Amino acid sequence: MKVGFVGLGHMGAPMAASLLAAGHTLAVYNRSREKAEPLRAQGAQVAGSPAEAARGAEVVLTMLADDTAVEPVVFGDSGLLAGLERGAVHVSCSTISVALSERLTDAHARAGQEYVAAPVFGRPEAAQARQLWVVAAGAKRDVDRCLPLLQALGRGLTVLGERPSQANVVKLSGNFLIASMMEALSEAFALTRKAGIAPETFLELFRSVFARSPVFENYAGLIAAEKYTPAGFALRLGLKDLHLALEAARDFQAPMPLASLVHDHFLEGVARGMGALDWSVLGRLAADRAGLSGATQ
Amino acid sequence: MKVGFVGLGHMGAPMAASLLAAGHTLAVYNRSREKAEPLRAQGAQVAGSPAEAARGAEVVLTMLADDTAVEPVVFGDSGLLAGLERGAVHVSCSTISVALSERLTDAHARAGQEYVAAPVFGRPEAAQARQLWVVAAGAKRDVDRCLPLLQALGRGLTVLGERPSQANVVKLSGNFLIASMMEALSEAFALTRKAGIAPETFLELFRSVFARSPVFENYAGLIAAEKYTPAGFALRLGLKDLHLALEAARDFQAPMPLASLVHDHFLEGVARGMGALDWSVLGRLAADRAGLSGATQ
Amino acid sequence: MKVGFVGLGHMGAPMAASLLAAGHTLAVYNRSREKAEPLRAQGAQVAGSPAEAARGAEVVLTMLADDTAVEPVVFGDSGLLAGLERGAVHVSCSTISVALSERLTDAHARAGQEYVAAPVFGRPEAAQARQLWVVAAGAKRDVDRCLPLLQALGRGLTVLGERPSQANVVKLSGNFLIASMMEALSEAFALTRKAGIAPETFLELFRSVFARSPVFENYAGLIAAEKYTPAGFALRLGLKDLHLALEAARDFQAPMPLASLVHDHFLEGVARGMGALDWSVLGRLAADRAGLSGATQ
Amino acid sequence: MKVGFVGLGHMGAPMAASLLAAGHTLAVYNRSREKAEPLRAQGAQVAGSPAEAARGAEVVLTMLADDTAVEPVVFGDSGLLAGLERGAVHVSCSTISVALSERLTDAHARAGQEYVAAPVFGRPEAAQARQLWVVAAGAKRDVDRCLPLLQALGRGLTVLGERPSQANVVKLSGNFLIASMMEALSEAFALTRKAGIAPETFLELFRSVFARSPVFENYAGLIAAEKYTPAGFALRLGLKDLHLALEAARDFQAPMPLASLVHDHFLEGVARGMGALDWSVLGRLAADRAGLSGATQ
Repeated sequence: MKVGFVGLGHMGAPMAASLLAAGHTLAVYNRSREKAEPLRAQGAQVAGSPAEAARGAEVVLTMLADDTAVEPVVFGDSGLLAGLERGAVHVSCSTISVALSERLTDAHARAGQEYVAAPVFGRPEAAQARQLWVVAAGAKRDVDRCLPLLQALGRGLTVLGERPSQANVVKLSGNFLIASMMEALSEAFALTRKAGIAPETFLELFRSVFARSPVFENYAGLIAAEKYTPAGFALRLGLKDLHLALEAARDFQAPMPLASLVHDHFLEGVARGMGALDWSVLGRLAADRAGLSGATQ
Repeated sequence: MKVGFVGLGHMGAPMAASLLAAGHTLAVYNRSREKAEPLRAQGAQVAGSPAEAARGAEVVLTMLADDTAVEPVVFGDSGLLAGLERGAVHVSCSTISVALSERLTDAHARAGQEYVAAPVFGRPEAAQARQLWVVAAGAKRDVDRCLPLLQALGRGLTVLGERPSQANVVKLSGNFLIASMMEALSEAFALTRKAGIAPETFLELFRSVFARSPVFENYAGLIAAEKYTPAGFALRLGLKDLHLALEAARDFQAPMPLASLVHDHFLEGVARGMGALDWSVLGRLAADRAGLSGATQ
Repeated sequence: MKVGFVGLGHMGAPMAASLLAAGHTLAVYNRSREKAEPLRAQGAQVAGSPAEAARGAEVVLTMLADDTAVEPVVFGDSGLLAGLERGAVHVSCSTISVALSERLTDAHARAGQEYVAAPVFGRPEAAQARQLWVVAAGAKRDVDRCLPLLQALGRGLTVLGERPSQANVVKLSGNFLIASMMEALSEAFALTRKAGIAPETFLELFRSVFARSPVFENYAGLIAAEKYTPAGFALRLGLKDLHLALEAARDFQAPMPLASLVHDHFLEGVARGMGALDWSVLGRLAADRAGLSGATQ
Repeated sequence: MKVGFVGLGHMGAPMAASLLAAGHTLAVYNRSREKAEPLRAQGAQVAGSPAEAARGAEVVLTMLADDTAVEPVVFGDSGLLAGLERGAVHVSCSTISVALSERLTDAHARAGQEYVAAPVFGRPEAAQARQLWVVAAGAKRDVDRCLPLLQALGRGLTVLGERPSQANVVKLSGNFLIASMMEALSEAFALTRKAGIAPETFLELFRSVFARSPVFENYAGLIAAEKYTPAGFALRLGLKDLHLALEAARDFQAPMPLASLVHDHFLEGVARGMGALDWSVLGRLAADRAGLSGATQ
């Protein structure tokens, strides 16, 4: 397929290389041109602007740092809006805001162009090893056309609905999950270090008991299914354990703000009569706060 | 080995059965006697009190709901303190407070008895399938004596140091990790539901990208090693993404208090000059808050 | 009145002096005896134990640092339980736990003695200037007997119900209000300093607009009355302003975790359909979380 | 003075009336014209657009709901940028974002016009009673010219520096203080209600002990002066009291997330060696988090 690619940073460069390796014809563009040279050596044509990279292309992918980097690439004088053919697709792989994704959807539609959001999960090493996971959303016809490209980037693909910005919501939610797990780990390491436990020991346990076990996905399944009964472990017992964790945190002088937050949600659940439900009923409390239907009855 | 076992609830009963199956001689006690009957059928002797279960035993395990349940079993008239032989070991598998664990350490020592804390990770199904993970701490000699029993309970074992209550800190930290992951998932499901994404879709993505990948253990490794440079993903980029997640949360009216908490920690890190470090530097911030050495310099 | 007084620290010493000045007969006790000497000079008798201070007294007041200090004074060998006459009253002015206050209620009742909780608001300067505010709870007959003493301590008195520990709940709630105001001020000072505003300027504004105006008590009145309509200022406008404050906090790199917390509560309110109510509807949200009647319907 | 006034809602209408009453000549504009009629009756001229209201005026004040309302009034076809004379001043009283305030500063400067930000504290009743408090920032010469107008609006005025957006930061910080106090009160009312204390009783106490006493301004003074020693009340005692408040919250099942947040900050302070400083040292912790100079040494 004839493809344009804009943004050749730590992520973009190996992604473009993956497309070349899969046999596609590539015109690449990067603001600082020297980053394009290695790809030229692999057979890519080097363009002088996003619009030039888009000329004659069926699909143009962009992989940029943030909203600020995406805006001139699309809306600028030699940007994609100006350069993309009618009916061609802009596939935005960048982690950008929901708001910008919706602006892009509208702007491309007005220009007779198509827009697919396809942010990726994975660090630069994963991009190099074609181990990214792609989350795509957009008009079914367009996503289908891009499948060969998206599949060439990584190990897997999740296709969402017709509204491109949904993919951005999912990408941001995923990064939030990582950040949350890191915060939880950070607090747990601080507490256990103050209790005299070597970080390597707790790390080993985390690997054995959590990371390489289905525990997290099992709980995710309960929350997705809103299946809070029968209780495998009752909310009121979870409240007890979080209370004991906070007591330990106080005794060892290791503040655990995330533990406090979760404790208070458990306490809310018990106060509202959910103490005998499974502790994954946290899912219902979050849904209630969001005003999801039936939540507050 | 001649063993006593006190507490035959959802967890205790299958654990006692595992010990019987491993060939040990068991005297069991439960407050409501009928729960002991199935074990009698499997060859256990049924005792009339904790002290009676302890008579002649080399080791007595207890598996009870909380501090309140453990106290009479140990300190009561026919409790373990009264009934355990000199030199015999009380192995406490219950999830109890650090404070009670330290009281038990002292009380047994004064009575010439030994004490090991060995809480377990796993739900009742795991107990039945001998898939628990045991975390043990106590005098090395005592832990070693109990190894055949602890290994018979589950799929693995982590041995900590000589201070029994360390095992309780680790158990509480583990339950805190689960609760945190559930809260993060709950908020992510609420947000994505409000953005029109089916829970099953987000669940599938969670499985593929997070639960069945080494992402969490990789970050745990960075925090354990305090290795925040070179940055695979810089803190200031993480701040940007959490900000975008919160913008989406506001637009879709799905409150995300955990995202807010983590966002503020990222902002603190950037304000304190850590913006170019890896976003796992959350670990240093938590350590700073706990006053861990060198943290605030 | 013949009165005992135990605990002559920064608060207790001037309180005891106030009672002497009001004409009461005092026997005082302090663990380190030298603190009692100035009161002896003012006419107090110095006792060798709490029990001795209680001998013949109609009322004994205690003013100690915390639960740990109160316990031996009451339950110890020469403690108040042992020394107080039948029908005499123990007035506990210390800031102690609700749990200990209830234990004291029971223990004194079993000993045929009376118990009143009467914690005080005010710092040592206020104690010296007889400007404390006393919050008393207990059997009406007992509180009435103690009125001349309680009124001699300060500028005012609030009498609650018959359950002494209610006074402790109120005292702890009051200290929580101060701590919360300090946290809010701390975050506001940090933000405004980073925006280049001198602390004295913001302080001056705080004095003029908030501290010396009825703004806080007006809002307290709305929450107490659960009167959230008509809206003087709508919740959705408050959400907008908190959002803008957080935007400023991000731009100036001044983390505001309390602002984040309140923002998320505002967002919850709007998500649950309360956007047009007065922003003091935060009161309903807190009540909902506590499961207060009708809250979640 | 010849003055324009744009925005005649609950706040703007009485503010415009105050200017008329002070003897100024007014041209007023409101999107829905009928709101201007009462002012016409009081002597104002009714303009057909913001630009028309600005014609010949020395100063134009705007009082609008939010950024979205301000933007067309300034940047629109018949907006202030187009209509304001060279050298005339736009005084923006609306509660808008810091970012928009800076855009307005730049845009007016480029057009040879002046810009002052002057948001106001007070509800509609205060506007009617000329009891608002105005916070103004901008070039000294411009603020001085506007003083007669700003003084006519309310009971007092705080003048900040030359950068207009500082006034917006202060206004947003003030609303944050109110929201925080309301959240603290909400949690305190929920706890005390669950402990059986009538809201009117706690309200009465709040009035006597807090609202009508200098307690809040005294603490604000300590934080502004960064004067954390000698300790009137030590941080570690504050930690104890917040812990007891949280214990009560748990016992009565009344979640107090703000109390948890503040508790964790106290614990951080104690863990970092500040336990003997005054509990207002929360101010230093917030400054540390913001990376304020010297903060983490």
